[in-house]
Amino acid sequence: MTPIGAALWRNLRVHQIYGANTDVGKTIASTLLVKALSEKSKVGFLKPVSTGSLNDADDRHVRQFTVGNNNVLTKCLYQFGEPVSPHIAAQSTQVNNEILSSIYNILLSWSRAGLKNALVETAGGVHSPGPNGTSQADLYRPLRLPIVLVADSRLGGISSSISAFESLLLRGYDVHSVLLFQDDYYQNHEYLDMYFSRRDIPLLAFPKPPSRPEGNVTPDTETQDQVAMKAYYESLARGLDLDSFLQKMEQKCERRIENLENMAARANEAIWYPFTQHQGVRPRDITVIESAYGDYFQTYKASADIDQDKDDNVLQSTFDGSASWWTQGLGHGNPELALTAAHAAGKYGHVMFAGTVHRPALDLAELLLESFGNRRLRKVFYTDNGSTGMEVAIKMALRASCARYDWDSSTEDIKILGLKGSYHGDTIGVMDCSEPSTYNKKVEWYRGRGFWFDFPTIGMKNARWHVTVPEVLEQELGVGEDFDSLHEIFDIDKRLRSPSGQRYTRFITKTLDRLINEKGLKFGALIMEPIILGAGGMLFADPLFQRCLVDVVRSHSNSFGTSSGSEETPTNWSGVPVVFDEVFTGLYRLGRRTSASFLGVDADISVHAKLLTGGLIPLAVTLASKEIFDAFLSCEKSDALLHGHSYTAHPIGCHVAETSVRMMMDMENQGDWDHFQKQWTATTKPNEKTSQGVWSHWSLELVRDLSLAENVESVFAIGSVFSISLLDESGQTGYTSTAARGLQQKLALGASGTSSFNVHSRVLGNVLYLMASMKSTPGDLRGIEILLRNALLH
Amino acid sequence: MTPIGAALWRNLRVHQIYGANTDVGKTIASTLLVKALSEKSKVGFLKPVSTGSLNDADDRHVRQFTVGNNNVLTKCLYQFGEPVSPHIAAQSTQVNNEILSSIYNILLSWSRAGLKNALVETAGGVHSPGPNGTSQADLYRPLRLPIVLVADSRLGGISSSISAFESLLLRGYDVHSVLLFQDDYYQNHEYLDMYFSRRDIPLLAFPKPPSRPEGNVTPDTETQDQVAMKAYYESLARGLDLDSFLQKMEQKCERRIENLENMAARANEAIWYPFTQHQGVRPRDITVIESAYGDYFQTYKASADIDQDKDDNVLQSTFDGSASWWTQGLGHGNPELALTAAHAAGKYGHVMFAGTVHRPALDLAELLLESFGNRRLRKVFYTDNGSTGMEVAIKMALRASCARYDWDSSTEDIKILGLKGSYHGDTIGVMDCSEPSTYNKKVEWYRGRGFWFDFPTIGMKNARWHVTVPEVLEQELGVGEDFDSLHEIFDIDKRLRSPSGQRYTRFITKTLDRLINEKGLKFGALIMEPIILGAGGMLFADPLFQRCLVDVVRSHSNSFGTSSGSEETPTNWSGVPVVFDEVFTGLYRLGRRTSASFLGVDADISVHAKLLTGGLIPLAVTLASKEIFDAFLSCEKSDALLHGHSYTAHPIGCHVAETSVRMMMDMENQGDWDHFQKQWTATTKPNEKTSQGVWSHWSLELVRDLSLAENVESVFAIGSVFSISLLDESGQTGYTSTAARGLQQKLALGASGTSSFNVHSRVLGNVLYLMASMKSTPGDLRGIEILLRNALLH
Repeated sequence: MTPIGAALWRNLRVHQIYGANTDVGKTIASTLLVKALSEKSKVGFLKPVSTGSLNDADDRHVRQFTVGNNNVLTKCLYQFGEPVSPHIAAQSTQVNNEILSSIYNILLSWSRAGLKNALVETAGGVHSPGPNGTSQADLYRPLRLPIVLVADSRLGGISSSISAFESLLLRGYDVHSVLLFQDDYYQNHEYLDMYFSRRDIPLLAFPKPPSRPEGNVTPDTETQDQVAMKAYYESLARGLDLDSFLQKMEQKCERRIENLENMAARANEAIWYPFTQHQGVRPRDITVIESAYGDYFQTYKASADIDQDKDDNVLQSTFDGSASWWTQGLGHGNPELALTAAHAAGKYGHVMFAGTVHRPALDLAELLLESFGNRRLRKVFYTDNGSTGMEVAIKMALRASCARYDWDSSTEDIKILGLKGSYHGDTIGVMDCSEPSTYNKKVEWYRGRGFWFDFPTIGMKNARWHVTVPEVLEQELGVGEDFDSLHEIFDIDKRLRSPSGQRYTRFITKTLDRLINEKGLKFGALIMEPIILGAGGMLFADPLFQRCLVDVVRSHSNSFGTSSGSEETPTNWSGVPVVFDEVFTGLYRLGRRTSASFLGVDADISVHAKLLTGGLIPLAVTLASKEIFDAFLSCEKSDALLHGHSYTAHPIGCHVAETSVRMMMDMENQGDWDHFQKQWTATTKPNEKTSQGVWSHWSLELVRDLSLAENVESVFAIGSVFSISLLDESGQTGYTSTAARGLQQKLALGASGTSSFNVHSRVLGNVLYLMASMKSTPGDLRGIEILLRNALLH
Repeated sequence: MTPIGAALWRNLRVHQIYGANTDVGKTIASTLLVKALSEKSKVGFLKPVSTGSLNDADDRHVRQFTVGNNNVLTKCLYQFGEPVSPHIAAQSTQVNNEILSSIYNILLSWSRAGLKNALVETAGGVHSPGPNGTSQADLYRPLRLPIVLVADSRLGGISSSISAFESLLLRGYDVHSVLLFQDDYYQNHEYLDMYFSRRDIPLLAFPKPPSRPEGNVTPDTETQDQVAMKAYYESLARGLDLDSFLQKMEQKCERRIENLENMAARANEAIWYPFTQHQGVRPRDITVIESAYGDYFQTYKASADIDQDKDDNVLQSTFDGSASWWTQGLGHGNPELALTAAHAAGKYGHVMFAGTVHRPALDLAELLLESFGNRRLRKVFYTDNGSTGMEVAIKMALRASCARYDWDSSTEDIKILGLKGSYHGDTIGVMDCSEPSTYNKKVEWYRGRGFWFDFPTIGMKNARWHVTVPEVLEQELGVGEDFDSLHEIFDIDKRLRSPSGQRYTRFITKTLDRLINEKGLKFGALIMEPIILGAGGMLFADPLFQRCLVDVVRSHSNSFGTSSGSEETPTNWSGVPVVFDEVFTGLYRLGRRTSASFLGVDADISVHAKLLTGGLIPLAVTLASKEIFDAFLSCEKSDALLHGHSYTAHPIGCHVAETSVRMMMDMENQGDWDHFQKQWTATTKPNEKTSQGVWSHWSLELVRDLSLAENVESVFAIGSVFSISLLDESGQTGYTSTAARGLQQKLALGASGTSSFNVHSRVLGNVLYLMASMKSTPGDLRGIEILLRNALLH
């Protein structure tokens, strides 16, 4: 399915007319606007769904009072005979996308035909259901047409008008103007004029139409009515300052396009971009995101990139291939999340969190502790992002190990254990948890404090699943293995007893022995990103190796130091505290609630962020065991974990996070991903319980087919993550390789066709990755898969 | 003015009836509920503002159909004759607080009289204006009564009902149930039942009343109507399952109280608190925040603290004395900010920011660059909080200085210059920017990297403004000075030329010479919080000393290292880059847009957070000069500033921030703080331009009077910050002192009286501070000032 996105043509001004309620004079306002606009140029009037009786049909009304005016085109898509709520009238009609597509195509044809203005009139109020039962405000959101709101002039109309406006705002619409009848008794227009002028939205009040003849409608009264209405419109045209009102609307449209045109240049002046070498960056390298909806950005297309003969819409749908840096899960512009955020903002704003508690923070903490299924984790500490969540995790782990082993950290250098290619965030403390790399080595205060293992990786090559052992480890671990299915690789219990399991264990044990006993190093934590080392280059770790590392550390409780006597319980840590950085990999990013579940071990400290809020706002949690928590207890305040950002556990983030996590859990429980799961389990391991299986939103066929492509090193997919490593002819790998740029550029060119779309992707050296959201449909992803195949196989 | 807050009595269930629109059957629904509830116990029906004609008045209707029922009490506060929009009917009536107060007192009297239920019926729709023109949804928000929404059963009613619900949600209301007429033609109740049951809100549809007799109303038709309505209510009582509906509402009320009762204990289990020594913390030490509005939390009062004879409301208004850790500025539950947040959520969600741009981020960046009036700052880098903003600032400053002086930071230890008692955040990198202290010295990876000056502080003692020189500096700087006014202390230009200015300059120059030339230290930045060192203990620095430090550093361009040749321009840095941490002190916290303006110097790097979003959500900006930016330019990606959190420049935060900053700028320009400014300038320096003066929201009289109290060391106020240092008899000062606890406890006990309130404050050792918001009125603050006087002077 080609996505329908925002419609913004350079020469055709389109507005959508919404009513604050039924019967507020929407069609009269439309007629007024159509007549005024048609005096200068051609105007299209589109009523996608009409529910009045035929004689009252809104496009008919417009037609009737513009008859003989060659500048007016009218069109209705769906016509229903009875003026009842559309959800009852039309439950069985076309689905939403078809409606959007039809609207888009008509508007496009009008744009090509040189029309200057078009109005798209909705039916009923803003939330009146469309043909498929969806609220119109949601149904039409992908087009995000600027809105003309027809307010309600009747008693109670102030309220319904403002509420309707708020419903539109929280769906991300821009309201360009307001019209309503002038009622000199209720004077709603005076109140609303004050209200909207504060928001820089022009308002036009205009006289009411003549009353309709009373009694039965006869051909005579019908004609009288028409004559009266005609006179009414003529008097409106004479009496109102429509020109200046239309000019203000036109200015808003012009400014919208101007902004899109100049934003990249302005950004290039004012913005210092994250992770960006600015040298050589030109405005045209900056993607202007006009808005976003579902899995897509709406991005600005510079004139040069527009095929004006086909479609000069300056916006295009751009698949958010990095899931907005791995955060996105429930769709951009999700109205449920917007409303949830607004509710917490209205109920609390932010309230400080030291020594206080509020529902959103408590409910989220309890939900996470219960649903992660980790018996160790008992306490939740809030911070603002993955990096700060990891800073807290390090402080926790180091304190616990220094306390147990009675180390003096002010004189001794306590290190951490990890994997090469790890990355835990951008603050200097967590940078020190990774080995020197492109990311950190030039940071003036960076001092790597740890030992990092090389490790085997997994992926598909030439249609076979393969465990690849890095050259430096081949002597110890062998040359790698092939597997028939991904499930076999993830069958950890079985593999633990296999020769590779034994080799891994032996190798890790020996290495630790050398570091601790020979070199005399002190380690205070094992820190790992389960399954995928994300920022380090989408490295897919062999889960068996990660599991062995945890097992070896935990089974060597006396190797790391001389314990000052701690109890051995199933939930106490042994060796060193195990910290899982699930900032990227947790919360369904890999198809499961936690990525730890793939390894079959419980961490002592677990950090989560990114998808936590469904992709809306920053929030992080660091979960810890009771024993870790207890290491900070004392009579001294200075022994406490003295960490806490001002917005710790901000209610908006917590409330949105609780809602998001529940939404994802509901999707899991309702089997929303069955379709994806089945295609992976059907071909690999039929009896696997899908909920705990290994599967991806991306198709197994895609992975297999691309793994056969010439310049592909390996391919992998798990959960929403798809990743492809390309062979770099220059021999470079990692962050400095440019092998993936060609593929990235092909995806950015996108699909052709009337409503073309393209893909915004991020590369990490020779790796290009894409991420689905939790709500991506098979249809959405098929389009992207076709692009990928075209780019790599044809 | 005593604040009116949320009303929640243990034995009286109060609901507020809102209509989705006028004429949806609100009064009939109320009557239905009143009748049903009155069968078991006493019910009160309150109509604060009635706008129908007398015969139709809603309380009259309820009375009429419950006549003879001793269990029903009805009451109307304001009655207007004509059914017109209240904003026109009653522009001149009572102000909002009086209405709230009257409602509260009636409900309180009903609670004392043993009523079990009460309904408060609004007029018109949710946003219909109250007597003072304020939307009812805003007017009644402080009480935050749970809501019964009467939905609209007519054509268009689905839309108006959902929009009304959304308007209520975004003001932080909880909707407990929905009622509406059953209309078998439009069937809105079916659609809405699906909609609300997904949100766990019970819906009751009930038959419409008999039609009214047509034609003129005569005594006969009037009686017929009454007879028919009576029969109607009787048939409803028989035909509907009201019991189970009321039970669901009752359950929601019970759960609300149960939650408040058990939240502290649950929090004590699940939450690891920021900056908290958990040893000995009991549930009763945790403040349960039910909601918040304006400057106040609504906090739960345990049974033991309630004087049941007076008022057994389990909630009380608690002044948010720390401005929620210094973030709060535009009032909790601010509906404009909630709507702004929702709009950005609906328009974008989060969109990734590397190489892209969106309006909220660009508009905010440009606004800040323009409005700060610092000629050096040209680029804006986004992060999530003050700590990460400062991490970025350090990375920027160190890179610039290492580049200019050609230092190899991987082998050399580059330090920073600062003041003792500084604090820049909780991440380990910025912890290293402060001298060893309670906060950081036990953090295992903390390594202080800098030199920190002792410095003179300012405050009022015994009704005199005084500059206090710490003992260790007395030999160099003298014993301090008295001043007649605060303005004299802030008259930097004059003081620079005075003997103290010369002493400061000499002392700093000498110290730097010793550190650099004798000890051979290398410094890469000067980092300061202008005027107030917040977390370090609300230390008010003598602005002259801070200014001298900047001047000396800048005038010694060749002392710090051998420059590899940089141009001297008015906007280039010299010596070392000057970093101002305005996270706490900026953006009107001290009454001015920037705190740098007090020092009269432009920083090279400036960090802002906290008030940036008006107190809603985390967001930080690090602004930098072009020259700092240029230090990262190269052909190597790895030379770039490789920092960037996933939610960098999240649109919600940026949009809310732009709105907040503009709102505060508008308040400044409109003279909203004139009242405060005048009392400071009138008594100190009449000719000072108020906008650039030194003033506080707190009264000068308060500062003076408290400075005379026996156990007070000194007092200070500037902008919204009020701070008092108490003498510690044990001789302790700083974080470990407990001298301020007694005052804190007195403020927590609060004011007595019917609608009592108390103050939640934070102490830093022997210092207790309070903060106003930008919207605090003189009346709000007077109540707090009285509490302070009572606690310290009586």
